[in-house]
Amino acid sequence: MTTALCRVSSNRMFSGNHQRFSHHSNVNHCQMTFAIYQPALASEQALPVLYWLSGLTCNDENFSTKAGAQRVADELGMILVMPDTSPRGDDVPDDIHGAYDFGLGAGFYVNASAPQYQNHYQMYDYVTKELPAIIAENFNVTDKKSISGHSMGGHGALICAIKNPGMYQSVSAFAPITNPMNCPWGQKALAGYLGDNQESWWQWDSCELINSLASDDPFLALPLKVTQGLSDDFLNEQLKPQALIEACEGKGKVLDYTAAEGFDHSYFFISTFIEDHLRFHRKYL
Amino acid sequence: MTTALCRVSSNRMFSGNHQRFSHHSNVNHCQMTFAIYQPALASEQALPVLYWLSGLTCNDENFSTKAGAQRVADELGMILVMPDTSPRGDDVPDDIHGAYDFGLGAGFYVNASAPQYQNHYQMYDYVTKELPAIIAENFNVTDKKSISGHSMGGHGALICAIKNPGMYQSVSAFAPITNPMNCPWGQKALAGYLGDNQESWWQWDSCELINSLASDDPFLALPLKVTQGLSDDFLNEQLKPQALIEACEGKGKVLDYTAAEGFDHSYFFISTFIEDHLRFHRKYL
Repeated sequence: MTTALCRVSSNRMFSGNHQRFSHHSNVNHCQMTFAIYQPALASEQALPVLYWLSGLTCNDENFSTKAGAQRVADELGMILVMPDTSPRGDDVPDDIHGAYDFGLGAGFYVNASAPQYQNHYQMYDYVTKELPAIIAENFNVTDKKSISGHSMGGHGALICAIKNPGMYQSVSAFAPITNPMNCPWGQKALAGYLGDNQESWWQWDSCELINSLASDDPFLALPLKVTQGLSDDFLNEQLKPQALIEACEGKGKVLDYTAAEGFDHSYFFISTFIEDHLRFHRKYL
Repeated sequence: MTTALCRVSSNRMFSGNHQRFSHHSNVNHCQMTFAIYQPALASEQALPVLYWLSGLTCNDENFSTKAGAQRVADELGMILVMPDTSPRGDDVPDDIHGAYDFGLGAGFYVNASAPQYQNHYQMYDYVTKELPAIIAENFNVTDKKSISGHSMGGHGALICAIKNPGMYQSVSAFAPITNPMNCPWGQKALAGYLGDNQESWWQWDSCELINSLASDDPFLALPLKVTQGLSDDFLNEQLKPQALIEACEGKGKVLDYTAAEGFDHSYFFISTFIEDHLRFHRKYL
């Protein structure tokens, strides 16, 4: 079935165009907005796609305006797709206290099962199924795709890649929430979207998922890159890169990990390292 | 006299640091905030400075977060200084209707003479005298400086360069308001800050200033670069690049003018061309 796309904006940028589209989401039952950067080369040939998942409080515009990724994507001949971080709209339930770390702007890239959220908060299905189908249907893309993200979106990129062997060519993350079962942001999100019964939580925790992999799981051969600032205020309480490093070591999984001295959690950090990440992905796309 | 600087924030970025400082302004009689990017090289040797003047509605953060200039400044060994666009604070009078194009966020880089604004709105003296003195006193800079800006800030860069022979090594502008006496934004600003008597207005109009130059004026030899998007919504009514082109032609002034097909007035436009402008300035710094 064809999904109708409504073009929200279009801006010429480098050789191509940065555009925003809205559409009805069949999984989230609301209007969703995403951004896409297409180099001019996309008018001549199909290009691979890098999906970017943003962090808490963001929508599709933060990475679009602050990371400087389009310059590099333009040079490398990659399309960038940047979804929103949650469902939106008057009908979509937010955190009951309006907190920044749950509800709107904080979908955590899971499929909610809690009764009050499950109708709208199906962000995992949105970013792994519905959105890629829309992109394939409407834009000049190859079937090669990779995924990256920041913080909550780094967690999202990791779980999307681990849970979908063969779907992505490579995965990377900036300051990801690696072990949401064991940090306040993750525990709040998982309890809210999934309920207090923690038995299902591990399916949305990158460390737990890696621990559960068979020794021949394709994820163990997937190129994986993580960059973490060492002056990140959330390093020890929320992000816990050591947990991911240990989970990878336990499975003999190669992790290209960079500890970046002096860098924090901001887009000043992301903009410094985004070129490295895009060049990493391009090798596999 | 030493001006006390209060550090508002500091973020590691590329090899250096992006920082914001606030201080009391003796010319604007209020607290002012500016941003500065210093490559790591600035800890070893004095570096030249590019001043950036932002457009209507901006403060020091828009260019800092959206243009991607620090990456290039880092490579080229330049310091970037990004002032606010107006005085700020509870005591500072705004537009009486709170309009976006006058008052707060819209200082127009002039020295106000109208009684209700002259105590605070001395942005020309701030960006050409007070701020450079603060930068020289507190940071490791050479005496070489250049200036650039966008829209209202492009107008600001032009008038600063024309009115101060020898102060800058080069000047550039993105989509500048070239002829404020003859456009709605400029007429509103000049009437408000200077009063309805138009006799003094020409001193703040780049085209009128160029028309008045003697044939041996040093500005006529100053490197000048302008980039203008041809899909800019403000092109014909507000910006009028042709007026600047004709003023330069009338004096035999070389203008490196780029008409950029398809580009609009946004930071998507600025981020596409900022590298060209920084490399242009670096040749003269």
